[in-house]
Amino acid sequence: MSFSPLIDELVVAFKCLPGVGAKSAQRMAFSLLERNREGGLKLSQALHNAMEHISNCEQCRTFTESKLCGICSNPSRIDNGDICVVESPQDVIAIEQTLQFKGTYFVLMGHLSPIDGMGPAEIGLDVFQQRLTQDAVKEVILATNPTVEGEATAHYISQMCKKQNIKTTRIAHGVPVGGELEYIDGNTLTHAFTGRRDF
Amino acid sequence: MSFSPLIDELVVAFKCLPGVGAKSAQRMAFSLLERNREGGLKLSQALHNAMEHISNCEQCRTFTESKLCGICSNPSRIDNGDICVVESPQDVIAIEQTLQFKGTYFVLMGHLSPIDGMGPAEIGLDVFQQRLTQDAVKEVILATNPTVEGEATAHYISQMCKKQNIKTTRIAHGVPVGGELEYIDGNTLTHAFTGRRDF
Repeated sequence: MSFSPLIDELVVAFKCLPGVGAKSAQRMAFSLLERNREGGLKLSQALHNAMEHISNCEQCRTFTESKLCGICSNPSRIDNGDICVVESPQDVIAIEQTLQFKGTYFVLMGHLSPIDGMGPAEIGLDVFQQRLTQDAVKEVILATNPTVEGEATAHYISQMCKKQNIKTTRIAHGVPVGGELEYIDGNTLTHAFTGRRDF
Repeated sequence: MSFSPLIDELVVAFKCLPGVGAKSAQRMAFSLLERNREGGLKLSQALHNAMEHISNCEQCRTFTESKLCGICSNPSRIDNGDICVVESPQDVIAIEQTLQFKGTYFVLMGHLSPIDGMGPAEIGLDVFQQRLTQDAVKEVILATNPTVEGEATAHYISQMCKKQNIKTTRIAHGVPVGGELEYIDGNTLTHAFTGRRDF
């Protein structure tokens, strides 16, 4: 409806972004055209480079443009011997921001979900099995999401580790820091009680 | 913090979009990488084409990739003789969607605002003056926004038209259809009363 095929194409293309509908897409297109053409060209170039050159790290499956990601190519992190298993590259970023974990990651890029055709091979557990046998792994920390699928995935991986006699831990679930007990759901409170520690 | 310079660049580039902060930008980047690389490449191409090839219509100043936009190159709309003056290309789209207006537009690409360096030349009123003298203009409809600057701009343009003895009208301001009187601000209600019509 803008009487310019190029603008129409741009608005339709913006709608592929998550959370962007017709109105936001139009706003984005006109904002760049009116005020920030340079930014638009930079975004175009950055998108092209990322879509063409980003693939998966051979060791941990996270997104990277190299063979190995920044963490997997850092010897001090490999020597640490801990592997943290997460569902997505965003989880890696979140954990890295805490500056608490000094080991390497394994990114499943999803979770076990047979109904969606996601079996052990689809979440890269064959690659993970190789790492368990080849690398000197001290501990596997399961940091999948606390959902039904995430818990099932954590359970499956813990069984794999048990066969190799590798220590396996699950991140703690409980009351979030800054949260108020009154508003916490019962399931989380139950976890908080069963997971209580000496004080 | 993603340990991939290309992903970092992409996230920074997404932040130039209106209403997109660090977290949304990250979500957009990973969503395209994980699920829709083809859509990402299309967006990259559409952005490049639009940023490089879109300029302004010679007659009405709206965005177009041709010399004249779709409306200004339609003889039946020029013959209509009405010109609707709006502030932005998005306003053209909004009015076109009503299917009520059969004339042509003039897009100011802003409004008079001396404090921001926006004088008559910056909003293209020299081009508009030419249209008033050259074209057979029957009526100028002022559809600038009902803000202080929009009203001032409408007033300025109405003075220009008066000198050429061209009929000038302002779109009606009043209670929006579907609105409840109770929640309408006093300024709008005043407009609704002074602008009342025979029933």
